This record gives sequence, structure tokens and C-alpha cells, in this order.
Amino acid sequence: MFCKCTENNTPQTNNLSTGLKQVGDKPFVGETPQNALNSWLTPNPLFYVRSHFEYPDVSDSDRINWSIYIDGGDGEVKKITMKELMRMPKRTMAVTMECAGNNRSDLQPKVSGNQFDSGAVSNAIWTGVSLSHVLDQVNISSDSVEILFEGADRGVPEQGYGESSYLRSLSLDIANDPDTILAYEMNGEPLPIEHGFPLRLVVPGWYGMASVKWVKSITAIKEPFHGYFQGKKYVVRYENGKEHPLTEMQIKSFVTSHQHGESISNGPISLSGLAWAGRARVKSVEVSVDGGKTWDNATLNGPSDTYSWQKWSLEWVPANIGHHTLIAKAIDFNGNKQPIESVWNELGYALNGLKPVCINIV
Amino acid sequence: MFCKCTENNTPQTNNLSTGLKQVGDKPFVGETPQNALNSWLTPNPLFYVRSHFEYPDVSDSDRINWSIYIDGGDGEVKKITMKELMRMPKRTMAVTMECAGNNRSDLQPKVSGNQFDSGAVSNAIWTGVSLSHVLDQVNISSDSVEILFEGADRGVPEQGYGESSYLRSLSLDIANDPDTILAYEMNGEPLPIEHGFPLRLVVPGWYGMASVKWVKSITAIKEPFHGYFQGKKYVVRYENGKEHPLTEMQIKSFVTSHQHGESISNGPISLSGLAWAGRARVKSVEVSVDGGKTWDNATLNGPSDTYSWQKWSLEWVPANIGHHTLIAKAIDFNGNKQPIESVWNELGYALNGLKPVCINIV
Repeated sequence: MFCKCTENNTPQTNNLSTGLKQVGDKPFVGETPQNALNSWLTPNPLFYVRSHFEYPDVSDSDRINWSIYIDGGDGEVKKITMKELMRMPKRTMAVTMECAGNNRSDLQPKVSGNQFDSGAVSNAIWTGVSLSHVLDQVNISSDSVEILFEGADRGVPEQGYGESSYLRSLSLDIANDPDTILAYEMNGEPLPIEHGFPLRLVVPGWYGMASVKWVKSITAIKEPFHGYFQGKKYVVRYENGKEHPLTEMQIKSFVTSHQHGESISNGPISLSGLAWAGRARVKSVEVSVDGGKTWDNATLNGPSDTYSWQKWSLEWVPANIGHHTLIAKAIDFNGNKQPIESVWNELGYALNGLKPVCINIV
Repeated sequence: MFCKCTENNTPQTNNLSTGLKQVGDKPFVGETPQNALNSWLTPNPLFYVRSHFEYPDVSDSDRINWSIYIDGGDGEVKKITMKELMRMPKRTMAVTMECAGNNRSDLQPKVSGNQFDSGAVSNAIWTGVSLSHVLDQVNISSDSVEILFEGADRGVPEQGYGESSYLRSLSLDIANDPDTILAYEMNGEPLPIEHGFPLRLVVPGWYGMASVKWVKSITAIKEPFHGYFQGKKYVVRYENGKEHPLTEMQIKSFVTSHQHGESISNGPISLSGLAWAGRARVKSVEVSVDGGKTWDNATLNGPSDTYSWQKWSLEWVPANIGHHTLIAKAIDFNGNKQPIESVWNELGYALNGLKPVCINIV
């Protein structure tokens, strides 16, 4: 757990004005800049972006003209317009969304995929309609086992595969949870195109891949879905050959107030950061300033909502100058603890090990 | 409480893209458009704006170069830079702010002042440092009675008065409340100029006039302050000659899902709106669809925070077509109830009477 700051480690420059840290292109992939991670709320332009294909062709008029097709599985298909969806009871929630590949760049040995640092996670206020309310508009076949969502984005996901839409399914119980919503607003504004305008699924507490963007059709299906983005990608494959599909975000916390390699004048220092735990609530965050030898309880502060991350802070007066390794560690109300090390897996998912930040007190 | 929709009452057009509804100019005054009031969070460009003078001359570099002067009242003056303030422990809160003159246009007989409809109220996530933490940096004179705040904006407030800054004071207990903050971020972004960039006071639960923008100096004073914006304006003067200065926002609620004069096709209708109660929490909201004859309990939903408004909703299936008058009524945990009628006062402040919305079911 010991780390030594490299002296020439220049702190990341403030890119609040220039937007996201680009991680990939075609399609664009970007993570939230470190400075914006100091905020409980992520402004729309700084919310991390991960898409699998280029954005579909939608226009401003789709804000009310877009329609989705609900197929109950017994031959009945119902068309519902955005206008109708927006008349249904509204549900508003703060939901933190993390890309399953967040922190992939920390993994050793390296794996392929977008090399995210810690910024593929963001928090927004989402408004939409409960999916269950929409499913109630049709008869769902009694032998259905899952609900399948199709985005309007299409492409070839990988060489050797045919062109397809982005497709993901949910079990009936998650689909019918009143907190699973079809969202059309983000932070009080219509969804930006990169976040699924005009309509996206938001599955609170789950990694981002579940929250299908540009939702076009919803179908009750009679066999579990194992398409590309559910059977091949977004599966955690361990070295021992075991594997499981990704669902809930794993418990995680990190320091956001300071950057690795930063030099700080001695004096009282305000440490802060973020913690989240999927669909559970964060119970406590412990912070070490000596690389994990001793731990103090941080104060949980800032607004909180069932599915939002939690800000934490701790005041610290360094006893001496020199290198100090800061680490945060979260515990949730279900008794889950953040592990010391992330577990290596083939595609680099669900990496929630402790994230040391080495700073130099001068 | 009965109202009849005028048939040619055209619903307000969606001006989400063009911004605020202008109410005054020189300086600009604007209220949040009705559509944005459907959202729990108000995006920065749609947050209502009320200033007393033109914006002061600040530049982007003031984000870190701005400094404030703290005068403890015993001759000691300390200069603190934004850079230093941003290193202090951060506090983040959702705070709803309402202009004291909100709904002034409803008052009969008419009074002078900005003729606000219902949109001089907005909700944002504010981040800053507790004022108490900043006051701790100097010795506050033991015979101080209030803390005075001076904004960098200056002008002639009214003919016959000299040029002055915007000045307001707070009692020592409110100034030292950990939730009274000097804020530098709004919804995760640096404060926009119109909201006090680079630094403003945020006094949660109080009408907006208390949250001094562009804060330049903070002074402990030995006599209560009675300057223009505290002794002359922002005072509730009743017809019977009694008066009191404005402090906390009064309990209030209103319907946001529908506009006065709107026609709606018969069928299930989702009613929703907002409610807030100063520094208290909203306990319940009752809704009438028949002009106040009968009342139903609405569901409180959406995110909430100590000082934020609360969304409410109620599903309604109209029993017949024709005119219906919708009214919301809030009750807080201190037992305060929203009054039926606002109390007329000379300057048109703190108007929290019930706000009927007449719609036509066709």
C-alpha cells in the first residue's frame, strides 16, 4: 500500500472549461475531469460519456414526437409517444452511474478496453416515468422471463459480428421496480444527445451498461437474453474460469480533494472524496493518511439520495512534511466492505480496490 | 376560491431554450419559466435572477484571485483569498431560494416592484465553506451584535439616496450556523456572474435578499444594521401599520404540472407541484381538484434535502369534463399551514396564499 510520489508528477490541469477527458473516439468516450469529481452533482457537459456506436439520428422535435414500441410477448404491440410518457406520473431521483470499466487503467496485468482512470462515474438528477407504469400499458405474456430493451444506436460491435442495435435485458423484478425509470430529463434539462436523448433507461445502483440509451423498443421475452452486450461483454471472467454478468455497482470510495503527485504547503488540510455502494447505502468511510497503517472515520456530508454517491470529508493536520499516502475505504449498511485490491478479470470490470493517492507535504 | 378559465387563455409557450421570463431590466430581473418548475433541480441558466445594481466587474481569474476582507470589529482585518477559501472544508447542500417578491403580480390592490408570477423561486446544489469557519479566522469583538456583508455591486438604490453597495447583516447565531455558507459553486459549476461569481452568501431557508452576491467584505458590527436593503426595503409593512423585516421563507406550495387556462383531454391526469417551508420540512401537501371543496393527500416524492423544496404528485381521474380548479396546500412539521390568502403588504412580500389553477377537461 506504500507509494512514493514521483517528483515530476505534474498535477492534472483544470479542464473544467474544455470538458471531458477523452478516453476513446469513434464513438467518443470521455471521463469526468478530476475537478468535477469534487462536486456532488455532475453538470451535464461533464458527465462521463460511454457509447458503443455513433449517436443515432434524432432531432429536437423528437422531444415530443419520439415513440417507443412495447411488445408484451403475445403479439400485442403498443406505440407510446414521448408526449404520452411525459403526461404519466413523474419520478425524480439522484442516481450515480459508474461505467463498469472505471479504473481499468489501474489493472495489472493490463487488459484491453477503454483505459479509464477514476472519472467514469458521475451523479445527476434524473426525471422520467417508472418503467413499470409503462409496462402496465400492455399485457405482459405470462411466460415472459425478461424485458429486453433496444436502443436506436446500431453498428458492428466487433470484427466478425454482424451489425446490430445496442440490446440489453432486465429480469422482471428489476424491470418492475418503481425506481427503474425511463428518463427524459437530466439535471432539469432535456437529456443531452450523448446521454440518450430523448429517452433512456436508468437502472439505479447498476453499472451504466444497463441504462440503455435512445430507447426505441421494449419487449417481453420468453428466454433469457445472451446477446453481445450481455453474454460476451459486460461479463466478469476471472482467471479461474468462473464468470458472472455485471449487475450492481460494487462498493467503492476514493479521494477527490487531492491528486496523486500533488505538493501541498504544510498546515490544516481538508480531505474529501466520494463513496457509493450500488443499491445499498454507505454506512461509513474510513480514511488513512499513512498508507493504510492507521484509519480515521470521515464525516459523511452533502446531500444524499437513495442511489446517489455520498460525499465525505476529514480535517487533517499533518504531523510532518514529506510523502503521505491517502486512502479511503467504504463500508455499507449490508456489511459490505471495499476490498484492498481489485480482482483481476479478463475485461477489467467492477474494479473497486482501494485507490492510494500520494501527496507531498512541503 | 372558484375560478373560471377564460377560453382564450393561451398556455405559456415553452421557453426552455430561450431562458428566463424577463421581469425587469437595468439591472436584469428574470424568473424561472413554468416548464423548468417541473424539475426538482433548476439548471443554472434557468435559475431566477434578481439583482439590485449592474453586475460588478469580475473576471475569470477572480475564481482564484478574488479576496474578501474579514473585519472582526476590534481593528483586525484579515484578507482571505478564494484559493484559501476553496482549501477549507467544503459544504454541499441543495437549497431552494425564493425572491421575497415572488407572486407579487397576484396581489390586489397592486403594489409597485417587480411583477413576478410564480417563478421567482428555484432550487440548486450549492457548494462552499461554512461562514463560521471563515469567521473563526479572526477574533470577533465580544461586543459585536451582527455580521455585515458587503457585495461588490454598487449604485443608487432609489432617487434621493446616495450611491452605496448592496449591504445586509445577519444575527450572530445565523451567521454562525454551519449551514450558512459562502458558496462558490452552483450545480457543480463555478457560480455564474448573475448569481454572484466568484463568491456569494447562501442563507438556507431565508428569502433570497439575505444571500448577498459578489461578497467583498464581512464585518462584525456593534449596532444592528438598518441600511436601505434592510430597513427600508425587504420589510413587510401591513395596512395596520405593523412591520417586520423579512427572514425565513413562508410555507408555500403550488401546482406546476398544469397552467391556468389549459385544456386537457379527459383521462387519467398526473398532477404535480412543489412545496417548501423555509427552514422547516414539509410534512404533507393536500390537493383539491374542485376549488377547495374536497382535499386529497398528495404523495411527496423526488429527492429531498433539509433546505430544498419537495416535489409532490397526485393521480387524478376527472369524473366529468368542464372547468376544474386545482389547488395545493402545504403543512410543515412545525404545524404551520399555508394560508388561504396572502396578506397584503405595502411592498408585496412573502406572498404565500393558495394559488388556484383553472383547467378545462375536454
